[in-house]
Amino acid sequence: MVAVSLEQAYRLLNHGPTVLVSSAHGDQRNVMAAAWNMPLDFKPPKVAIVIDRNTYTRELILASGKFAINVPCAAQADLVVKVGSSSGRELLGKAPATKFAAFDLPTFAASKVPAPLIKGCVAWLECELIPEPHIQDTYDLYLAEVVAAWADERVFSDGRWHFDDHDALKTLHHVAGGFFFTPGKSIQAT
Amino acid sequence: MVAVSLEQAYRLLNHGPTVLVSSAHGDQRNVMAAAWNMPLDFKPPKVAIVIDRNTYTRELILASGKFAINVPCAAQADLVVKVGSSSGRELLGKAPATKFAAFDLPTFAASKVPAPLIKGCVAWLECELIPEPHIQDTYDLYLAEVVAAWADERVFSDGRWHFDDHDALKTLHHVAGGFFFTPGKSIQAT
Repeated sequence: MVAVSLEQAYRLLNHGPTVLVSSAHGDQRNVMAAAWNMPLDFKPPKVAIVIDRNTYTRELILASGKFAINVPCAAQADLVVKVGSSSGRELLGKAPATKFAAFDLPTFAASKVPAPLIKGCVAWLECELIPEPHIQDTYDLYLAEVVAAWADERVFSDGRWHFDDHDALKTLHHVAGGFFFTPGKSIQAT
Repeated sequence: MVAVSLEQAYRLLNHGPTVLVSSAHGDQRNVMAAAWNMPLDFKPPKVAIVIDRNTYTRELILASGKFAINVPCAAQADLVVKVGSSSGRELLGKAPATKFAAFDLPTFAASKVPAPLIKGCVAWLECELIPEPHIQDTYDLYLAEVVAAWADERVFSDGRWHFDDHDALKTLHHVAGGFFFTPGKSIQAT
């Protein structure tokens, strides 16, 4: 795991991967899947992401003002679907009480946000919410500044993804119904 | 080319392709490249896209309230980079006077918007701007409703992308500097 410069953080999302959004507030924490995300600016790096109004994640992001984007890989495809089709709110007060426990999701601490980072992912973006209540309320659209970024250097270094033969570490690009593409042949345009 | 139902239009962008944004107002028209796009809602389908404040495209979208998202394919990778690294405004009054002419880009008429659709692409979304001046001015972020959608049925039908062996028709996912991934191995999560 290596630090990614803030100037190059947008490149972690530029090719359109589906991500996992982790969040925490006090002793509460959650994780959800989100195909609808994109870079929004280079410097400082910003992102835009859709967080449905019914999600528990939304509560935690609004309470803490922070979240993390985790970029999962092919080895985690089943996990992404499980995380994306369950509700952290429904687990409250039960055992296991979180999706992290229910799906055996190991995490590690972020550097600048309380949201846990998910082990086994291939990139991580620590984000601070840019409050824009109108578009949050009207479109479920959240904007954030990226304050730290990390990647698995086996597949991302010098500002570039390079999956080569690391099939299990390739990013996931959701089509529909748990069907994903992973990056295949590359093209260098001239 | 087949019509895509509005309910399934989001699937054209769900896996994160880089797109071409075409626009027209009166006898002016232009096209730009945009990696930063995402679905925003299912029904009615909406999209979010970043349109830099310095672009000629922005002028035409604000004047007409409409634009089109064209999803280019591997065979058009060089074209996407050319379109993305040139300015339609700088061609005004010159010969050729548009990027369409300069790059020999054949087009056809859209059904509901004045923006031309680009031949050889594999999907098209006709869009009506949802005016949100604050985020347009602050973040270069534009929201729109998708009012018609189309796809090349060789690679998209029944609400799914299925590129199979159509390498030249695969979508482009920009990494950096004209380097793109195309969809490779797929995964059906369980």
